Amino acid sequence: MRVFGIDCGTEVTGYGVVDSLDDGRESRLAAKAMGVVRLSKSKTLPERLDQVFDELTAELERWKPDAVAVEEVFYSVNAKSALKLGQVRGVALLAAARLGLPVAEYAPLKIKSSVVGYGLAKKEQVQFMVARLLGLDEVPRPADAADALAIAICHIHTAQTLSLQGTAR
Amino acid sequence: MRVFGIDCGTEVTGYGVVDSLDDGRESRLAAKAMGVVRLSKSKTLPERLDQVFDELTAELERWKPDAVAVEEVFYSVNAKSALKLGQVRGVALLAAARLGLPVAEYAPLKIKSSVVGYGLAKKEQVQFMVARLLGLDEVPRPADAADALAIAICHIHTAQTLSLQGTAR
Repeated sequence: MRVFGIDCGTEVTGYGVVDSLDDGRESRLAAKAMGVVRLSKSKTLPERLDQVFDELTAELERWKPDAVAVEEVFYSVNAKSALKLGQVRGVALLAAARLGLPVAEYAPLKIKSSVVGYGLAKKEQVQFMVARLLGLDEVPRPADAADALAIAICHIHTAQTLSLQGTAR
Repeated sequence: MRVFGIDCGTEVTGYGVVDSLDDGRESRLAAKAMGVVRLSKSKTLPERLDQVFDELTAELERWKPDAVAVEEVFYSVNAKSALKLGQVRGVALLAAARLGLPVAEYAPLKIKSSVVGYGLAKKEQVQFMVARLLGLDEVPRPADAADALAIAICHIHTAQTLSLQGTAR
């Protein structure tokens, strides 16, 4: 199973591709790719949205994931920030939809507890565990890419739990 | 000059196409089309965004406007609503950007004052003036389409004012 995680942001949108490799006895995770779409401030808003759509579409076509996972948005932000974030998020979801890929959304608490085992874990703890689960020597940089990998890992863990529950039934 | 106005909404997005016909002495406005994209609640969010993008792209390709005009968002809404609206708005702006169309944004106050001559005009006054300026016998329905026509008219009036200022200089 290959999952493409997206961490949407107004200026920087991170993405990360994670494979779960299952040999029948145990499953391992491996990072296939990670990166960010960094939006130029000199562009107009429509141009920036076009850039996010183009770059994410190119990565999705390149990595051909089985699913896309995004973070549910936390409403502690103000309305102005939420609108800006929503514009980028809409375009990211559209990129997945146009390639016929299923999209799953996870709450921040769920992502943290899925990666660290603790919903109130700090950002650094999440990034440390992302590196560890993916067998990386260093914490992935930039942080937006690490966050996207965490979202992808959350989807894989959730899918594995659901599949185990299915087997047990 | 042909302008495509879009009034973005979480459930219903209105659009309206307005031509300004200039015979050298005076300019008249004419509504070429209006309509709405009504989002099905049974669809997932990515599917709904795909529908908005598809339908707006089809109308933009059909009517080939010189410019697209949208309303600037008013931040009195809460963050949750702003995020939802932002997602639709992002996709609408993307549809224009992918067709290489310039996009102009207008504040609600500016749209009202441009159509009615009074920034604090009521919704009904705006709709009445939209019908009158376009020579329509009735107020356009649904209201979202009328609002989109108002945005298009605002763009035409603004462009005419700018062009007059250019001539005067």
